[in-house]
Amino acid sequence: MNSDSNVSKVDVLIIGAGPAGLMAAACLTKYGINNIRIVDKRSTKIYTGQADGLNARSLEIFHALGMGSEIIREINVFGEVCYWEPNESGEIKRASRSPATLPGLSKFRSSCLHQGRIEKHLIDKISKWSISSNQSNDQNQKRVIVERAVCPDSIELPPITSSPLSDEDEDHITLTLRHLSESEAQPAQFLPSTNDGLFRSNVFDDEESSLGSTLNDLPIKESLETIQCKFVIGTDGARSWTRNALGLKLIGESLNYFWGVLDGIPATNFPDIRMRCAVHSAENGSVMIIPREKDLVRLYIQLPQPPEGQRPNRNDVTPEKLLEVANSILAPYTIRIPKIEWYTCYEIGQRLADSWQWNNRVFIAGDACHTHSPKAGQGMNTSMADTFNLAWKLAHVLQKKAHPKILETYETERSKIARELIIFDQKLSSLFSGKPAKDKEDESGISLEEFHEILERGKYFTSGTTVNYENNLLVVKQTDSNLKIKSKPDLAKKISIGTRLQSHRVVCLADAKVYDTLELIPADGKWKLLIFPGDIQGNENCKAKLEKLSNFLADDQKSPIKRFTPVGDESDSILDCITIASSPRISLELEHFHQILRPLQGQHGFGSYLKIFTDEASYREGHGHAYEKYGINPDVGCMLVVRPDQHVSLILDLDDHLALSKSFFSIHTPIESCQVDFFYLFL
Amino acid sequence: MNSDSNVSKVDVLIIGAGPAGLMAAACLTKYGINNIRIVDKRSTKIYTGQADGLNARSLEIFHALGMGSEIIREINVFGEVCYWEPNESGEIKRASRSPATLPGLSKFRSSCLHQGRIEKHLIDKISKWSISSNQSNDQNQKRVIVERAVCPDSIELPPITSSPLSDEDEDHITLTLRHLSESEAQPAQFLPSTNDGLFRSNVFDDEESSLGSTLNDLPIKESLETIQCKFVIGTDGARSWTRNALGLKLIGESLNYFWGVLDGIPATNFPDIRMRCAVHSAENGSVMIIPREKDLVRLYIQLPQPPEGQRPNRNDVTPEKLLEVANSILAPYTIRIPKIEWYTCYEIGQRLADSWQWNNRVFIAGDACHTHSPKAGQGMNTSMADTFNLAWKLAHVLQKKAHPKILETYETERSKIARELIIFDQKLSSLFSGKPAKDKEDESGISLEEFHEILERGKYFTSGTTVNYENNLLVVKQTDSNLKIKSKPDLAKKISIGTRLQSHRVVCLADAKVYDTLELIPADGKWKLLIFPGDIQGNENCKAKLEKLSNFLADDQKSPIKRFTPVGDESDSILDCITIASSPRISLELEHFHQILRPLQGQHGFGSYLKIFTDEASYREGHGHAYEKYGINPDVGCMLVVRPDQHVSLILDLDDHLALSKSFFSIHTPIESCQVDFFYLFL
Repeated sequence: MNSDSNVSKVDVLIIGAGPAGLMAAACLTKYGINNIRIVDKRSTKIYTGQADGLNARSLEIFHALGMGSEIIREINVFGEVCYWEPNESGEIKRASRSPATLPGLSKFRSSCLHQGRIEKHLIDKISKWSISSNQSNDQNQKRVIVERAVCPDSIELPPITSSPLSDEDEDHITLTLRHLSESEAQPAQFLPSTNDGLFRSNVFDDEESSLGSTLNDLPIKESLETIQCKFVIGTDGARSWTRNALGLKLIGESLNYFWGVLDGIPATNFPDIRMRCAVHSAENGSVMIIPREKDLVRLYIQLPQPPEGQRPNRNDVTPEKLLEVANSILAPYTIRIPKIEWYTCYEIGQRLADSWQWNNRVFIAGDACHTHSPKAGQGMNTSMADTFNLAWKLAHVLQKKAHPKILETYETERSKIARELIIFDQKLSSLFSGKPAKDKEDESGISLEEFHEILERGKYFTSGTTVNYENNLLVVKQTDSNLKIKSKPDLAKKISIGTRLQSHRVVCLADAKVYDTLELIPADGKWKLLIFPGDIQGNENCKAKLEKLSNFLADDQKSPIKRFTPVGDESDSILDCITIASSPRISLELEHFHQILRPLQGQHGFGSYLKIFTDEASYREGHGHAYEKYGINPDVGCMLVVRPDQHVSLILDLDDHLALSKSFFSIHTPIESCQVDFFYLFL
Repeated sequence: MNSDSNVSKVDVLIIGAGPAGLMAAACLTKYGINNIRIVDKRSTKIYTGQADGLNARSLEIFHALGMGSEIIREINVFGEVCYWEPNESGEIKRASRSPATLPGLSKFRSSCLHQGRIEKHLIDKISKWSISSNQSNDQNQKRVIVERAVCPDSIELPPITSSPLSDEDEDHITLTLRHLSESEAQPAQFLPSTNDGLFRSNVFDDEESSLGSTLNDLPIKESLETIQCKFVIGTDGARSWTRNALGLKLIGESLNYFWGVLDGIPATNFPDIRMRCAVHSAENGSVMIIPREKDLVRLYIQLPQPPEGQRPNRNDVTPEKLLEVANSILAPYTIRIPKIEWYTCYEIGQRLADSWQWNNRVFIAGDACHTHSPKAGQGMNTSMADTFNLAWKLAHVLQKKAHPKILETYETERSKIARELIIFDQKLSSLFSGKPAKDKEDESGISLEEFHEILERGKYFTSGTTVNYENNLLVVKQTDSNLKIKSKPDLAKKISIGTRLQSHRVVCLADAKVYDTLELIPADGKWKLLIFPGDIQGNENCKAKLEKLSNFLADDQKSPIKRFTPVGDESDSILDCITIASSPRISLELEHFHQILRPLQGQHGFGSYLKIFTDEASYREGHGHAYEKYGINPDVGCMLVVRPDQHVSLILDLDDHLALSKSFFSIHTPIESCQVDFFYLFL
C-alpha cells in the first residue's frame, strides 16, 4: 500500500455532491469534522430541473443547521391540493380541495425549491463551516470545496477487523480517484439550451453510461490519485459506483408507466395553476401540477402507454409533444409554455438496496439506496435525511465521543423509512397512472376515492415529521435490556419516542420573547437534556426535584456533564440542558436556577440567555401550551434525552438520575485509542 | 455657467450617505430614477456605534421595498421593557414590566440593528436597483455607488421661476464638489482602536469642524468638479452643509444634561440585561439598557451634571469612567464589558430646522432637519421615513406623472412628525435625567409615574405606525375643496385617512395562501386601488357594483388606468388594483373577475396571481378579519386609494367613479414638457 506523502488521508470521503452528499459534508463540517473531501464526477453543479420538493422536516433540518432563513426566502409554499376528475360527461372538473400541509405537524409546510438552489446553499455553508469550527485547532485548515470532475476508480477495503479510528495505513479504506478533463465530465448532450435531464428512474441512459464509455478510450494514467479514508459515503445516485463496487444490489422492478416532466412559466386559463393539482382525465391520462418558485410550474405528464415491454421512442419525448399530451389531459383548458426551462422523461419503478453499508465503514445513501417515482416529492428530502442521520454518528465516532457501534443504527433506521416510502410510492404511482373507473362496477379502472385517501393519508408520511425510529442503541422506547434503563413514555404521553421532537412555543425568562422548542435544540452535534420541572413556583415537590437534579448535574463525580466535558470546554458542550418550567415567568428569577442550568460562555463569563423558559402566554404570540401538547403533567414533570438530530431518545422521571447516568456512562472499558474519556449511550 | 461636456448632469444629487441619504437613493433607483449621484465626505462607511433603533414602521418600509427579510435576520427584537427604581431603602428594584411593542399596531416589532448594517443593505440595493430598473432604456446605464470623500463646496441656485423639469443649463442647480484625499476625509481622531463616535448632539466637536479647518490649508483646486442637478437632497447630518448653504437654521436649545453611551458584550449579574430597561437610581443618575444583536448591549449612562453652563471634561469621558458611573447606578449589581466596541458622549438638546427646502428644488432631511436625544430610538427611523416620503414624489415629478406641486407636501407632512418627536423627546429626556422624587411632597424630584406614562404612551408614537399626515394635495380626509371630491371615512371606520394602511391577513384566490395586505401594496412607485366589493357571491348589489366598477376601469375613455398607462406598459403599472372580497373563496372562480382586475403580465400573457383575495379563515393562519378590522361593512364595501408610500389617500364609495376619475385626471392643462399624458392627483 502506498504510504508516501502524496497520499491524501481523510476522515471521510464523500462520493457524489448531490443533496445527500452535500448534506453529509455540511453536517460534518458543522460538527467540527473538517478533514473530509467531497468529489463529484460532473464538472458543474446543476442549474435547472431535477428534484424540487421540500417537506416540512427538511425545512426543520435546514433551520436546525442555521441555514433555514436563506432557504425560506426562496421557496414556494404549497397552499392547497386540488383534485380534478372527469365529470359525467367526461370533462375534467375540480372535485375536491384540501390543505397542502396538514395543520399541527410542523411550523413549516410542504414547499418546493429547485435542487440547484439547495445545493448552492449547502455548498456555501460547507465552505464557511469547514474553516469556522472551533473544534479544530489546525491553523492551516483548508476550506472544504466540492472537487468536481473527479470520480472514483477503484476501492480497496481494509481487513474486516480493522478499527475505523486507527491511523495506520493498513486500517484505512484506500481509493483511487480519477481527475477528469472538462469534456469528459460534461457530456455534449448535457449542454442544450433547453435542458433535458435525468431522474432517478429516467428512461434514457444519458450521462452516466456515456461518460463511462467515453472515458475508456482516453489516456487517463496521469490523472489518478490515491486517497486513504477512515470512512466513505457513497451518495453517487441511482447508478451508484460505490454500491456496485461493494457488490450491493438495488432490488425492485419497473411498472411500465412512463411520465414526462416539464418546467416553465405557463400561460394558461386553467384556474388552479398555482395549486398543487392531481388531474385525472377520462381517457388521456393524468397530470400533476406543482407550482414553483418565481412563477415557474412543473408539470408531470403521463405518456401514452407503449406496447408491453417496450419503451417510448426518444424522438417522441420532446417538449412540444409533452405539452401536446398535457393539453389533451387538461382540455377544455389550454396551456402554453413559451420557454421550457427543463424537461425529462422517466419510467416508474421502485428499488431498494439490499444493504446500505460495508462493515459500517463504507455507507451508501440517497438515490444509491432507494429509487422511486418523483411524484411524492420525497427524493431530495429522504436523501438529505439519510445523511443528516448518518453525519452526527460519524462525527461522534471520529471525535471519540461514542462507540462505533452506533453506526449500525444508520442502516436500521433509514432503510425502514425507505421501505415505507417505496410502499407508499407504489400505491400512489399505480393509482396516479391508472384510468379512473367509470362507475363502481368498472373494475378496469382505478378508484379515485382510494387515490384521494392515499394522497391525504400520505400527507403525514410525506411531511417527513412522523419518521419514527425503532428501539435500538439510541432509542429506548420502553426498556433497554442491556442497561435496564426504563423509558417512561407515560410522562410525556403525546411524545412518541424515536420521532423528532415536535416544536411548541415557549417564553424565555431572560428576554421575554417566544422561541420554538426546536430552535432550542439546534443540530450542533450536542445531545440535549430537556428538563420539564413542572410548576417549581407553586409546587414544593417540583422545586425540590429540580434542585436535586441540578445538584446531581453539578456533582463532580456523578454528573455526565462533569464527567465527560473536556477540560476547557463550555459546560454545555457535551450535554446541553434546557429547562422549561410551567410556572409564570414573573414568579421566577434567573438566579433561582442553579448555575449548571445556565452556564456561562466564553472566557469572559457572559451569560447564556437561551436556557430557561416557561410555558405560558406571551405578549404577542399566544400560549404555546407546551406541557399540554407534549402530554406532560405540570405536577409531575419529566426530562427528555434528545439526540443531536432532534429525535427523542429517552423519557425519564426527574429523579431518575441513575438512568440518565447509565445512559451516558459506559459499562464497557474505553477503547484504546481514545484520548478523552470515552462515553457512549445505551451500551 | 459652465456647460461643457465634463459637467455631470443628474436628476438628483444626494449629499450625505447616512440612512436618510441612502434611503433616498434606494427608493429613487427602485422607482426607476437612475440618473442620480450620492456623495459623502467620509472615506468609509461606519462599522460600529451610532444609531441602532429600528421601529415597526421602518421594518414595514424595508419589507415594502423588498429588502426586509435580509434585515429581519439580523435584528434583535425587544421583548419587554422593565422599569427599575429605588425602593424605600434606596436600592434599585424592578418596579414594573410591559411589552416592548404594543400588540396590534404592526406585524413587526420594536428592534435594533447597528446603523452600519442598515447602510450596508441599502448600499447593496442601490447598486442592484440602479441597473435593474425596467423603466430605463439606457444600455450604458451605470451602477449608482456611494462616492466617498466627496463634499460640496458651493451651490448656485437657478431663478425661482425655473422649471425643475427643464433640461436647460440655466434652470439647473449648479454645485461644485470637492474630491478629498484619504487623509482629509478621515481625520486622525476618528481611527482609534476603540471607536468613539458622534451623535447628533455630541459634546465634542470631532470631525466636521476639524475637517473644515484642515481643508482650508490645502491646495484643492485640482479636485473640484461641477455638477448640474434638477433636484438636490441634503442628508448631511446635524451640521448640514446644505442647510447652512441655503441659509436655513436649526432652532432649539440644549438642556445641560450629559449622557455617555457604551457598546459591548457585558458580563453582569443584572438579571434584565436582555430586556430594554429604564433604571433610575436614587442618587447616582439613570441608565438605559438596549439589548442588541449578537449579544451586544448598549448602555446609555447619565453623567454627573457639570456646573451650570459648563460641559464635561473630555478626559472624564473614557470607557472606564463611563462604566464606573454605570456600576454606581446599577449597584448592588455589577457589570463589566471586557471589550468596549464603541462609546460616545452627548448633550441632550432638541432642534428643528425653520424650513426644509428651497423652492421645492433643494431639500434637507434627517438630522439636517431635526436633532434630539437618541434615547427614544427614533433618529434613524425618522430620517429614513423623511426620504421615503420624499423619494416617490420626486420620482413622480421626474417621470412626469405628477405636478411638481406635490413636492410641497414633503415639508408639511414630515415637519409635523419631527415637531411631535421633539416634543416627545423633551418630556422623555427631562424625566429620564431627573432624580426620582422621594415621595409625593418632594418637588425637587421627578415623578416616576409620569415617566412610565410618557414612555408607555410613547410606544404608539415611537412605533412609527401611527404617523398621520394632515389634509393636503395627497390626503383627502373629508372633502377636497378644489375638486369637490368627498372622502367617505365612514365606509372604513377603523382606517384613519393619512396614516399608512394597517396590515391584516387575507387569503389569495389563486393559491389559497395567506398574505398581509401591506405585502400586496409594496413600495414600487405605483398608486394602489384597494377594492373591497363585499360579499359578491351572496349579495347581488355588491356583485353589480363590482361589475360596474370593473367596466369603468376597463373603459377606454373614462378609466384612469386606460387613460394614463403608457402604451406597451402593463395595465397595472400606473394604478394597481387589488380586490378583497368578503365571500368564501370556494364560492368564487378567477374567471368571474373582470380581466382588468387580474391583468396579464409580460409579453407572453402570464397571469398575475396576487390580485384577488378573500377575507376568511385560512388553513393554518386563522382568520384575518380584514373587513371587521378596517371597519368595512361587507354589505356596502368601499375602495381605498393608497399612495405609493402605503399611506391612505382617499376612501370612496364603490360607485363613486367620478371621484376616482377626478382624483386622477387633472383639471389643468398638461405642462409643456410632458411627453406622456400628464396626470396628477387632487388638483
